[in-house]
Amino acid sequence: MESKQPNRRRFLKGSAALVGLAAVGSASAQTPAAAPAPAAFIKGSEEQIAYGQRSRFETSVRTSHGGRKSPDAFGLVMHVATPLQDSVGVITPSALHYVATTRGAFIPDIDPKEHRLMIHGMVDRPLTFTMEDLKRLPSVTRLHFVECAANRPSATAKTIQDSHGMTSCAEWTGVLLSTLLKEAGVQSGSSWIVAEGSEEVKGASSIPMEKAMNDCIVAYGMNGEAVRPQQGYPLRLLVPGFEGIFNVKWLRRIKAVDQYYMTYNDFGHLRQEPENAALGYQIGPKSVITFPCVGKQLPGKGFYEISGLAWSGGGAIRRVEVSTNGGRSWTDAEIRGTAQRMAHTRFSLTWNWDGTETALLSRCTDEMGKIQPTRAQVAEFFKVPLVPTYRAPGQDNTIQTWKIASDGSVHNAYS
Amino acid sequence: MESKQPNRRRFLKGSAALVGLAAVGSASAQTPAAAPAPAAFIKGSEEQIAYGQRSRFETSVRTSHGGRKSPDAFGLVMHVATPLQDSVGVITPSALHYVATTRGAFIPDIDPKEHRLMIHGMVDRPLTFTMEDLKRLPSVTRLHFVECAANRPSATAKTIQDSHGMTSCAEWTGVLLSTLLKEAGVQSGSSWIVAEGSEEVKGASSIPMEKAMNDCIVAYGMNGEAVRPQQGYPLRLLVPGFEGIFNVKWLRRIKAVDQYYMTYNDFGHLRQEPENAALGYQIGPKSVITFPCVGKQLPGKGFYEISGLAWSGGGAIRRVEVSTNGGRSWTDAEIRGTAQRMAHTRFSLTWNWDGTETALLSRCTDEMGKIQPTRAQVAEFFKVPLVPTYRAPGQDNTIQTWKIASDGSVHNAYS
Repeated sequence: MESKQPNRRRFLKGSAALVGLAAVGSASAQTPAAAPAPAAFIKGSEEQIAYGQRSRFETSVRTSHGGRKSPDAFGLVMHVATPLQDSVGVITPSALHYVATTRGAFIPDIDPKEHRLMIHGMVDRPLTFTMEDLKRLPSVTRLHFVECAANRPSATAKTIQDSHGMTSCAEWTGVLLSTLLKEAGVQSGSSWIVAEGSEEVKGASSIPMEKAMNDCIVAYGMNGEAVRPQQGYPLRLLVPGFEGIFNVKWLRRIKAVDQYYMTYNDFGHLRQEPENAALGYQIGPKSVITFPCVGKQLPGKGFYEISGLAWSGGGAIRRVEVSTNGGRSWTDAEIRGTAQRMAHTRFSLTWNWDGTETALLSRCTDEMGKIQPTRAQVAEFFKVPLVPTYRAPGQDNTIQTWKIASDGSVHNAYS
Repeated sequence: MESKQPNRRRFLKGSAALVGLAAVGSASAQTPAAAPAPAAFIKGSEEQIAYGQRSRFETSVRTSHGGRKSPDAFGLVMHVATPLQDSVGVITPSALHYVATTRGAFIPDIDPKEHRLMIHGMVDRPLTFTMEDLKRLPSVTRLHFVECAANRPSATAKTIQDSHGMTSCAEWTGVLLSTLLKEAGVQSGSSWIVAEGSEEVKGASSIPMEKAMNDCIVAYGMNGEAVRPQQGYPLRLLVPGFEGIFNVKWLRRIKAVDQYYMTYNDFGHLRQEPENAALGYQIGPKSVITFPCVGKQLPGKGFYEISGLAWSGGGAIRRVEVSTNGGRSWTDAEIRGTAQRMAHTRFSLTWNWDGTETALLSRCTDEMGKIQPTRAQVAEFFKVPLVPTYRAPGQDNTIQTWKIASDGSVHNAYS
């Protein structure tokens, strides 16, 4: 799937060799040091046989987003961010998938045997589905990201987990919502649906019927097993490419209606007209370099692979460019694997760092031809001054710049 | 990605409606029963925020394969099978990925900071890599299955976990082995590598240089995080499409050599010539229906989605056919998502069961045009009688037949 073969001379023979490898290579020893024997061996326990765990040496964890207390004093806000600084590949492990809810911070403890999904409102045949019913219907399996509209570059972010950790990507399996709506028979004149969850506050979102009939998934599977409780077990709505809050978790009810309904969850949209609030929340083309990123330390000049993630609510990522000189010039990165629609896409670019101060940026283009904007472009569009504490209205898909200091430390360029 | 739109009339309006849904549909109630309120709400704990867990209602687990004691009396055999009867989508969750080792049943407990990979033998520059070195090199991310050669239909299998659970599929991230070998400079005349793990017995496999330079991955990432300990943490070799034993775990050493070396692990191959033993172990095109499968109970006649997995060591799956009448006729199933090379591929077919006894089969064709064989074809090829206890020599990629009894119970046709 990769178009270019790595060039051997770039890694070892060139002036910019791997720091650690250089020593070994120059020694030219015929008998390099073997790996030490493992310190110990673990006997397989019954529990480990049943459901395996990660290594005790792995400490990557989600954190409360932006230092917020989760839940807050009202028990309502839980924002937990994915550790993107440790990410490899495309899938986010379910255990590390970001969680956001402003709909009550407590997770419904749902017995799937008791759970029901009701489809009603402006339909010919109101229907109630058990989980078993849903699993008998035609299914799809698709890779999709979810992203919270609050996910954004900021001056205060000390980690990529803080600035970009409110997005994750998983393999989702379920029934197309259109299949269920066709079964129920949507009546002419119904132009919206309201999707409702099972939280204490019964959080809901209004979604245009056109989107509901297009690619929304009523998902029961996530990364090869049941959707996790924090992601809506046993059933959640996937609204591919729309901002996170539309992806209703613990899904219990879908009502076909003839207008947009302002719901409990729209507090974040009150600044705008309701239609704009709902229709404007497709995620724009966005990318971020996950290595190197703020907080990392490069051990010295030499060869590195710059790696990152790109995604768009507008479809598949078609191109990612990386600048290693603060935006003066751009080079096409390689897209790893097959870019999927509305899914995280891994990109990478080989880079010989000469040890001088510089800045790394990435920008992506999606299949619609839309290009990720700079902060300056967005500030100009909204006619707001581009000060360090600049914060775009609504979602923010602008380019993130990481500064590389001459000592190899990596910093947030906006701090 | 799906080529056909589900036809609404097939599910509800036809004679073969969903059993549960039929009652609701016929009632035509304007106010169907809503989902009951969740029994309880779980407050997010610090642990759940850091690294989430699955629902307490999910009980799908791996089991010791074929009733073997794991580890056996010699502490050498551990075979733990994936619960394919519960699988959704394509990815196997890392916690449920199958485990097989005949190389000591104890898992090396390796500190990644201490781990090294040595490349030596017939190379110009012997090299030792730390984990940090490897992560700086160009990486790939690819979906690949691994399968144990012991995975096969059998008369004794009472579950699909027993007959087919020794295969799993994950998203692997790492460095192409060819990148490392090019760095070391393989000398002319070197035609094989020997890859060695860190187990107590230092299990090793001989792999042809042509395969080593093609698509093998030295993998540190699995499903978006570090490779799990049972899968070789911190480093394993992926030999895409070759049988499981070649995919050396806890990888510590690769030696370029000029001949096939018979290693500790080749006990299973002693029946054959060494070259054949190594070269013959590419997995053939194989598929199995995961729903319905042995042990399941259909609640009654009506609409179902038949779903399963197909894979091949020969590349991507190009076609899957399903028979719902014991093999008399075949229908093309839909391939869900984009079929990847040497990866599990999800297929499905809508089916109206009329309530009479029948048998379900699937067969796949890979991109090389190879078709999954029947048991009868293989028995004829090897000139062995096709008795119920039939067991193919070597690997067995033959078609699995599930019998549907008139009461809806599903059985292994070979028992």
